[in-house]
Amino acid sequence: MTLTDPTTSTTTATSTTAPDLDAARAALRARLLADRVLIDLGSPGLYGRTGVFERVYTAVDAAAVNSQQDLDAEVLRFPPVEPLAAFERTDYIASFPDLAASISGFTGDDRTHRALLAARERGERWEGFLEPADLMLTPAVCHPVYGLVGDTIPQEGRFFDIVGDSFRREPSLDPMRLQAFHMHEFVHIGTPASAQQHRDGRIPVMRELLESFGLEIDVVPANDPFFGRVGQMLARNQVEQALKFEFVTPVYGDDHPTTAISSANLHEDHFGTSFGLRTADGEVAHSACIAFGLERITIALFAAHGTDVDAWPAPVRAALAL
Amino acid sequence: MTLTDPTTSTTTATSTTAPDLDAARAALRARLLADRVLIDLGSPGLYGRTGVFERVYTAVDAAAVNSQQDLDAEVLRFPPVEPLAAFERTDYIASFPDLAASISGFTGDDRTHRALLAARERGERWEGFLEPADLMLTPAVCHPVYGLVGDTIPQEGRFFDIVGDSFRREPSLDPMRLQAFHMHEFVHIGTPASAQQHRDGRIPVMRELLESFGLEIDVVPANDPFFGRVGQMLARNQVEQALKFEFVTPVYGDDHPTTAISSANLHEDHFGTSFGLRTADGEVAHSACIAFGLERITIALFAAHGTDVDAWPAPVRAALAL
Repeated sequence: MTLTDPTTSTTTATSTTAPDLDAARAALRARLLADRVLIDLGSPGLYGRTGVFERVYTAVDAAAVNSQQDLDAEVLRFPPVEPLAAFERTDYIASFPDLAASISGFTGDDRTHRALLAARERGERWEGFLEPADLMLTPAVCHPVYGLVGDTIPQEGRFFDIVGDSFRREPSLDPMRLQAFHMHEFVHIGTPASAQQHRDGRIPVMRELLESFGLEIDVVPANDPFFGRVGQMLARNQVEQALKFEFVTPVYGDDHPTTAISSANLHEDHFGTSFGLRTADGEVAHSACIAFGLERITIALFAAHGTDVDAWPAPVRAALAL
Repeated sequence: MTLTDPTTSTTTATSTTAPDLDAARAALRARLLADRVLIDLGSPGLYGRTGVFERVYTAVDAAAVNSQQDLDAEVLRFPPVEPLAAFERTDYIASFPDLAASISGFTGDDRTHRALLAARERGERWEGFLEPADLMLTPAVCHPVYGLVGDTIPQEGRFFDIVGDSFRREPSLDPMRLQAFHMHEFVHIGTPASAQQHRDGRIPVMRELLESFGLEIDVVPANDPFFGRVGQMLARNQVEQALKFEFVTPVYGDDHPTTAISSANLHEDHFGTSFGLRTADGEVAHSACIAFGLERITIALFAAHGTDVDAWPAPVRAALAL
């Protein structure tokens, strides 16, 4: 069983932040804010998005969907929060505790409420008056699907088209690293062979699509930020096993590490075992997931082509129907 | 200053749940689940959404946007979470503490992580290992805008087109009451006269649109669920002052209370005062907001016309371009 993160989230090198890489990130962020593509909400990695951002974001999503039309995938959408019980089945808290986010609510009475407001009035923190609400922010948009497909997968497998909110607690001034973002994922659950075929067969299509956007793309083994000392071992395993590939692009120029904007991930039997999924022949189901990082692709486009969309190269606008 | 909730959330009567009203709610929920419009995620008020839901939801949103096209509003989108500092400027925790939701993250080291995992292994709760992250789930999608418009509003005012996630901690088996949902809001900030004109002028347009969907609509003063004893007074004030109106429809038949599916809300100087906004003539800015409850309208449509969209009345399909 492998503990790979099923979605895209890593910049290929996060620890080596050379001063000029920080400067390049700050420069892109400043440009996106100055040109009113993004709006600073006062918390690193959280932004308001303006009309021009939405225009490109919508075009990216439509092109991504269009490129996977032949899958005839079942549409599923999920809210940004998931029940704790569902989250617990994924081992996320073991692998990525620092990225997880739990939700608390107020369950007290009038009197407790007055005490909360009095604490607030005194300038004290008041979150201690809240209780865990058995909900987590969803860290990976495909997580909920594995608990919903029943125990048996038909032999030809199933395909799902899932887009949703993803939250990861990693405040950063790199505009390519958001705390709240969206992934459009195409998940396959089936046999070992069909899962591998889903991951491998989609890679050329995704690469071609991203290159048609005028982005320089490389496909490399993923290097997810597993937590702690055990995590270092898991991260090494992930690279060696080459189960997850990322589509990376040099957002900050060729002298700096590339950034992942999409991924193609073979989970093997990881979710099949965790969720008790079997194929019609009684074997543990395998799964694979391809994921478009919608905000990352959008921001990579602004970084590559500038913030005046109407001045982008004609072939790029054509590929995005912009 | 009034403490009205700027968005739609109330069913006009929530406390009088006659047994047959509960039965009517359970019947609608069961039908939506059985016909695969919604998928139960195991937590009341949280659902997965299938292709047929998305088809109607997308059509509702497009029709809502189209009906407000003449506003030429500035597009703004926000993530489902907002910084605590922004949340604090709205007094939401005073009026609706029971609906609020705060976010916690893990900031510990390897050793604390091992302790967390050991507690989890023993079947104990582990959220206590997490710390408040200075983030809240956004309860009202227009909240972030007031902190972003600068101090001075031009005399002709500004219009914003905002759609986003809203979270309110009110688990319910009524499928019209979700914990996580979306509002499409059209906000105006300007003078007392222009704010009142925005609220009043839009009401007939919204009513006509919702009626074109084949829904029976009434427009009534809102009755938000303010918390506690002080809240009862605020709720009375809200009804008496008639600042917020709701578009309600008899989802559960004429013998049961109606449910709000949209709203039109005059905030007067509430946000202008809280956020220090002034118009060009130096007066405190006023604001108003009209809000389409996208999931509530969508589910009201399934309740009224059934779950087979292609069998809906032709005029309804035409109004929704379905």
